[in-house]
Amino acid sequence: MKSYREYLVFNTKTKRDYINITQDVEEIVKKSGIQEGLCLVNAMHITASVHINDDEKGLIHDIDEFLETLAPHEPTSRYHHNRTGEDNADAHIKRSVLGREVVVAITNGKLDFGPWEQIFYAEFDGQRTKRVLVKVIGE
Amino acid sequence: MKSYREYLVFNTKTKRDYINITQDVEEIVKKSGIQEGLCLVNAMHITASVHINDDEKGLIHDIDEFLETLAPHEPTSRYHHNRTGEDNADAHIKRSVLGREVVVAITNGKLDFGPWEQIFYAEFDGQRTKRVLVKVIGE
Amino acid sequence: MKSYREYLVFNTKTKRDYINITQDVEEIVKKSGIQEGLCLVNAMHITASVHINDDEKGLIHDIDEFLETLAPHEPTSRYHHNRTGEDNADAHIKRSVLGREVVVAITNGKLDFGPWEQIFYAEFDGQRTKRVLVKVIGE
Repeated sequence: MKSYREYLVFNTKTKRDYINITQDVEEIVKKSGIQEGLCLVNAMHITASVHINDDEKGLIHDIDEFLETLAPHEPTSRYHHNRTGEDNADAHIKRSVLGREVVVAITNGKLDFGPWEQIFYAEFDGQRTKRVLVKVIGE
Repeated sequence: MKSYREYLVFNTKTKRDYINITQDVEEIVKKSGIQEGLCLVNAMHITASVHINDDEKGLIHDIDEFLETLAPHEPTSRYHHNRTGEDNADAHIKRSVLGREVVVAITNGKLDFGPWEQIFYAEFDGQRTKRVLVKVIGE
Repeated sequence: MKSYREYLVFNTKTKRDYINITQDVEEIVKKSGIQEGLCLVNAMHITASVHINDDEKGLIHDIDEFLETLAPHEPTSRYHHNRTGEDNADAHIKRSVLGREVVVAITNGKLDFGPWEQIFYAEFDGQRTKRVLVKVIGE
């Protein structure tokens, strides 16, 4: 069994952002030399998400609006977590809904995807350096 | 390390549907010949979900109602994604809440499940051909 | 390829509870002897969750309040599932939102975590014996 690990690093200009990382993950899979196996892609920070969806601007808007309605950033005083001096409780909750990670099959050395699957890094508390872990195992 | 991949294919009669695929996945695991490992089961389309829950009609009703309340299909004009000519933005969001995939342990050649765990394919934009990927790795 | 499986057992004093199981999972990874691989941690019951978040009391309160607002326990009659004699339909839904499982990379024999990642068992229908499965595969 082979394994390979690499990080992706982000520092978004805005507090919330959605970045298509499919190409980055595909390159890491290629570097790993693994033909058959699994690829784990996870946010290493608990106010960000990795998920799979369509790369369509309107949809990204809809998902962002959906999450902001579910767990609004303001008033920040509504969250107990923010009494610690943070203002990112909503980011923790948004990420919990959208999910920390995806696991993708690798077949013939490639991400084994349906026609529209794209991997996104979703940032909910950005403007600082944060990482995504990509771990590939297989043969 | 061994690996094995197979698809399940669906074409539901209704727009939304919940199908128990546990037996299908168990048969694929058996075919793989893998005794110890992991089994990934994921929707290959971004308007459908694979998740694990109880196979009880009332609960399936409750989950469906919960998701339809959170992200209603109508009015379709409330979603920016639907300006592309689609009417399935709600399906993308429902699937994001319920999740794209499950990873199940394989022990002694079987899905290593608790007493009530059942794998479901949840369709949110059906009446067309869609696939689920099952990837098994291990030994 | 090596593999290792162990259970964690819980019987919470309250109906809902959030327990940090990071140390328990780390010890299982150590026992497995696996240096590079993946670790699956999943609830074996469909009214409980395994997820990763910050170990901060205020945040745990916020997540609990968020889930109780989304899918309130009462009135129990609002859920069809509860017509079976159960009163835990809300627990099934809460767990569906928060997720059944996490998959964590193992690198150099340890959980490959970001600075604040902690694994939690979230119980939504406790006061009975329930289990979490930990499966480690790799080399």
